[in-house]
Amino acid sequence: MIQHPGNVFVVSAPSGAGKSTLAQRLVASVPDLVFSISFTTRKPRPGEVDGRDYFFIDEARFDAMVAEGGFVEWVQVYGHRYGTGRDWLQQTLATGRDVLLDIETTGARNLREAIPDARMIFILPPSAASLEQRLRSRGKDSDEQIAIRLKHARHELEQYPAYDYLVLNDDLELSYRHFESIILAARARRERMTPVAEGVLQGF
Amino acid sequence: MIQHPGNVFVVSAPSGAGKSTLAQRLVASVPDLVFSISFTTRKPRPGEVDGRDYFFIDEARFDAMVAEGGFVEWVQVYGHRYGTGRDWLQQTLATGRDVLLDIETTGARNLREAIPDARMIFILPPSAASLEQRLRSRGKDSDEQIAIRLKHARHELEQYPAYDYLVLNDDLELSYRHFESIILAARARRERMTPVAEGVLQGF
Repeated sequence: MIQHPGNVFVVSAPSGAGKSTLAQRLVASVPDLVFSISFTTRKPRPGEVDGRDYFFIDEARFDAMVAEGGFVEWVQVYGHRYGTGRDWLQQTLATGRDVLLDIETTGARNLREAIPDARMIFILPPSAASLEQRLRSRGKDSDEQIAIRLKHARHELEQYPAYDYLVLNDDLELSYRHFESIILAARARRERMTPVAEGVLQGF
Repeated sequence: MIQHPGNVFVVSAPSGAGKSTLAQRLVASVPDLVFSISFTTRKPRPGEVDGRDYFFIDEARFDAMVAEGGFVEWVQVYGHRYGTGRDWLQQTLATGRDVLLDIETTGARNLREAIPDARMIFILPPSAASLEQRLRSRGKDSDEQIAIRLKHARHELEQYPAYDYLVLNDDLELSYRHFESIILAARARRERMTPVAEGVLQGF
């Protein structure tokens, strides 16, 4: 279990629901909120930068970190492993900053066990039809791949009951406001604001 | 206990902390959020309108409502009674709208007993000095009255541990964003969004 003054937020969504757009805007707009950078054994894709998009490490190093308890959670997806490093997370939270983790549903479930007070946010696509259209408009996938992605999206969607907050991504502005609100409201919680309240009280 | 699809929010603050400004802006900006209108036995002040600012009723009617269990909470302050009507609250919440109650700390504590899942918000003035300055700049009170108000403010402030959220009213824009976020985040909670998620899921 990790002790932390900062808040941990987890965001998951079916592929194509618009999660990355929302999450990137959030981290750019809200002060003292930082993205968690995962470790992975997969190779960098074109444009990906080590230490910004992921920490790219080899299988042996990943094995060693697992053995040392160096991950808060880790999962294997399509033959590659992804994990959230314990040291980085702990050090960042200790500074009072909040951390946003963009992880898929299995990793999120594992993270909840390590950090029970993590706030879990699930982004809902507005509909199956709109998700299919977004996938098609990217032009990356064949019909068959799109069918597989939609089936996988349904499986991901079925995990929503494990989340604390659901944000429907139909209207981008409104969705963003709800998403951001979850972070700001968490910062206004009494547990977090008690030192501020005590400071005000002492002046009276 | 009141069953309700809508959320109940309570806001309290020491006099002069800027609560009314924040609350009025909130109700004007956020759709489907309405102010609770209290019943009171005090006489209307100039400009106050029955059914908008309060329901102004006499002592006998107030007694009858107390006897019938017509109030979710009621309190006596400086010889006048104030209460939140059960029927109006129940009917409004049943439509799915959220209700904001602007009540002082004793009433808030009573309301929490009737509606345990009410979200309780306390507005903190930035400091004793700033509160004193705000009270002086209103030009309504003598030095003696200001001293009494500050003492009362301290007493009110000491009730903050009974609240779920604390909003420091130092920067109006930032304070407003935090205040509004508490309402929007409550609307994104899974319990409230489950019908939406189920609707999306059925399309897959």
